[in-house]
Amino acid sequence: MAQKPSIPKGTRDFGTQEMAERNYIFDTIRSVYRTYGYAQIETPAMENLSTLLGKYGDEGDKLLFRIINSGEPFSKVDVPSFLQEGGVDDAGLVKAVCEKGLRYDLTVPFARYVVQHQNEISFPFRRFQIQPVWRADRPQKGRYREFYQCDADVIGSKSQLNELELVQIVDTVFTIFGIRVLIKINNRKVLTGFAEIAGFPDKVVDITVAIDKLDKIGLDAVKEEMLGKGLTAEAVAVIEPILLLSGSTAEKLATMRSLMSGHSASGIVSETGLKGLDELEELFGYIDAAGISQAVEIDLSLARGLNYYTGAIFEVKALDFAIGSICGGGRYDNLTGIFGLPDMSGVGISFGADRIYDVLKGLDKFPAGLRSSTRLLFANMDASVLPYLIPIARRLRDEGIACEIYPDAGKLKKQFDYADRKSIPFISINGTDEAAAGVIGIKNLSTGEQCQFAKDAVSEILAFLS
Amino acid sequence: MAQKPSIPKGTRDFGTQEMAERNYIFDTIRSVYRTYGYAQIETPAMENLSTLLGKYGDEGDKLLFRIINSGEPFSKVDVPSFLQEGGVDDAGLVKAVCEKGLRYDLTVPFARYVVQHQNEISFPFRRFQIQPVWRADRPQKGRYREFYQCDADVIGSKSQLNELELVQIVDTVFTIFGIRVLIKINNRKVLTGFAEIAGFPDKVVDITVAIDKLDKIGLDAVKEEMLGKGLTAEAVAVIEPILLLSGSTAEKLATMRSLMSGHSASGIVSETGLKGLDELEELFGYIDAAGISQAVEIDLSLARGLNYYTGAIFEVKALDFAIGSICGGGRYDNLTGIFGLPDMSGVGISFGADRIYDVLKGLDKFPAGLRSSTRLLFANMDASVLPYLIPIARRLRDEGIACEIYPDAGKLKKQFDYADRKSIPFISINGTDEAAAGVIGIKNLSTGEQCQFAKDAVSEILAFLS
Repeated sequence: MAQKPSIPKGTRDFGTQEMAERNYIFDTIRSVYRTYGYAQIETPAMENLSTLLGKYGDEGDKLLFRIINSGEPFSKVDVPSFLQEGGVDDAGLVKAVCEKGLRYDLTVPFARYVVQHQNEISFPFRRFQIQPVWRADRPQKGRYREFYQCDADVIGSKSQLNELELVQIVDTVFTIFGIRVLIKINNRKVLTGFAEIAGFPDKVVDITVAIDKLDKIGLDAVKEEMLGKGLTAEAVAVIEPILLLSGSTAEKLATMRSLMSGHSASGIVSETGLKGLDELEELFGYIDAAGISQAVEIDLSLARGLNYYTGAIFEVKALDFAIGSICGGGRYDNLTGIFGLPDMSGVGISFGADRIYDVLKGLDKFPAGLRSSTRLLFANMDASVLPYLIPIARRLRDEGIACEIYPDAGKLKKQFDYADRKSIPFISINGTDEAAAGVIGIKNLSTGEQCQFAKDAVSEILAFLS
Repeated sequence: MAQKPSIPKGTRDFGTQEMAERNYIFDTIRSVYRTYGYAQIETPAMENLSTLLGKYGDEGDKLLFRIINSGEPFSKVDVPSFLQEGGVDDAGLVKAVCEKGLRYDLTVPFARYVVQHQNEISFPFRRFQIQPVWRADRPQKGRYREFYQCDADVIGSKSQLNELELVQIVDTVFTIFGIRVLIKINNRKVLTGFAEIAGFPDKVVDITVAIDKLDKIGLDAVKEEMLGKGLTAEAVAVIEPILLLSGSTAEKLATMRSLMSGHSASGIVSETGLKGLDELEELFGYIDAAGISQAVEIDLSLARGLNYYTGAIFEVKALDFAIGSICGGGRYDNLTGIFGLPDMSGVGISFGADRIYDVLKGLDKFPAGLRSSTRLLFANMDASVLPYLIPIARRLRDEGIACEIYPDAGKLKKQFDYADRKSIPFISINGTDEAAAGVIGIKNLSTGEQCQFAKDAVSEILAFLS
């Protein structure tokens, strides 16, 4: 008996309708990236495990899909040496027979690419990359084992102009999509500054995580949590004004600058914090000049990728649809260092295509007409008419009109059903009479309007189809 | 010490220049596919090995990249039971710990897709698919372990109109590329017919392989080879007129029809052969009606995928560049049968993107201007001018002009070098004077022409940049 076909859990097939919608997302992001001078690269699906391991933490290492060596992998290792009392050294044996893995994100392959090709690259290097990544995560709603990332990064420039342009890209993309978003911006150096003026420079993460809960649990509980994490009452007193920060962006920046300059309860000055404020001020100056149409604000609780980013941190939330972050990113100073190229500062963003898809679906914002690319179906009642129709269809295709000739002569009902299921908007029905007269009839299937055209009247036909 | 980064052998990074060129190939093929009503689908990189195994022969099975199961794969199998005297049951243990593999082509995943989604699909189903495939082949010049395939197939229709449209697609694509090609067409049923009238219906492959050598080794050697394969002198005498076949396509078809109808030395009639000739005649009738601009001919030696195709067989060769087949395909009646859906006839083609790339490079046929997407670089001499430049750049981007502002203020020489290395054709240099006057200067870097524009004169600026 034939096997019942299926695909691995956590993976998906994309049919023609979904592909049209997904391509709309990718094409939009790609075209905006390009107007900012970002150019596309691609890297292999498989990377050496030596490139991937140790970059995503222990948890990430476990989520790598590993490819077993080709040929006879086990004949090249001493399998009995991996046997232990009552079992097997699983990790050791996996390591011994797998040298390659599927990429887990686009960032590490990009860092590897930059280092490997550093002599061919013109810096600052703006690249975008839209490719699938694979993670052996437990599949669940909205989480897949294969999914696309849409990343843009610029490497080799420390200017905040790069941060601005990424904000502009986010602004433009979501404005095209018709999705209202809030672009939240933070800066790792400012977070470090808070920890420094509180006198606990090693508690950046704890402080940020606590601040993040302000809306949910309230001021007192946040203070309680910080005390629980080992901060002193004096340290919490230094941080309290930050929790109460309000006003315009300029006012917030001014308050923070005052605190960071030694005017907090501790009197400690944080040079790192002041540097972070300089960066935020420069960026918001550019944002004012640019005129961003979506909402942008400083959000000090933004802790995204905290152990990774060294400057700006971005996160984008949809305002009218409940879902997690739909885009994020930040600046990292040390990314290529792991591959032997130090002092390369970069900043990047990544659009979450699957979540954006859900938002566009949920808000019904996909443009009409994405469904079928075919504009006109030539019905086929009589195969003897095909030699008449073939050159006509060809001329319309040369004008960019997607058309189909129904391949099998037969009942019109079936052919109308086909047009209907594929949402083809126009049908042309012709028999030997039309062929003899040198005309074609075309019907608009949504309005019912019908017209007859001389077969060579291409511009009139195009006008009717448009 | 940092590791020296590298990628697995047989895989490639594609830089911005190569990507621009590769996208030109993919975009061209995609847009032509679309005008014929083919719609895109995508399938996962990973398929269950049960889907892939046994579809590509023993040799193909060995070339599958297999993914080791996640978690602790060896703890779930009885490893000692795979140990043998002096070794290990390698294939058995691989099978026990690997359930998934990377797709080897796009055809088997497509067959799996059609069967799995048969209730959602409108037949005849025209799909195209442009995705990478992976084969653990020995890497060599022009052969990679990861490469893209660009397939189009229509399934659920037996009409030769489908074959015609694939020929039209090939014709259009290579005409756009400016590559002169020969489109060779054969039919599996005709080959079967030859074997039948020769009285050796089971020797189709041997006969075709011998015919294929005619140009290289000459008539006598071909006859010798057929005798060596076990054909009788009488059988070879039946086939000899086929080897000597000449004249126009119509003449060749007429001669073959006569032979197949019982007028060969054997007097045997081949119904299958006659059916194949009917198909070829129908197809060439449509080809005449369509007016194909590239060369098309019947080539009886075409043996491509002989154990797989059941009707038309296609192969495309570049006329002005020595390389193997750059496109091929054919009709298969049984593809989805292996997954439990019988009687679905399909026909498809596949463009070889890597070889087409080599031909376009070799013949210098890539269009000019693919190199850089950035049209205009705003130089950055003085960061205080940035708030003036940012909105100007934004307005040009809204008009679809890709532009960059050099992010770090500094020496012009470095910025000119950057424009040169990226082949950016225009540069705009502005200081505080231009900002105060509300103008921008733009220089055409290839002609040296320089102009100054009011900053709001967008249409004049666009005209200068075009």
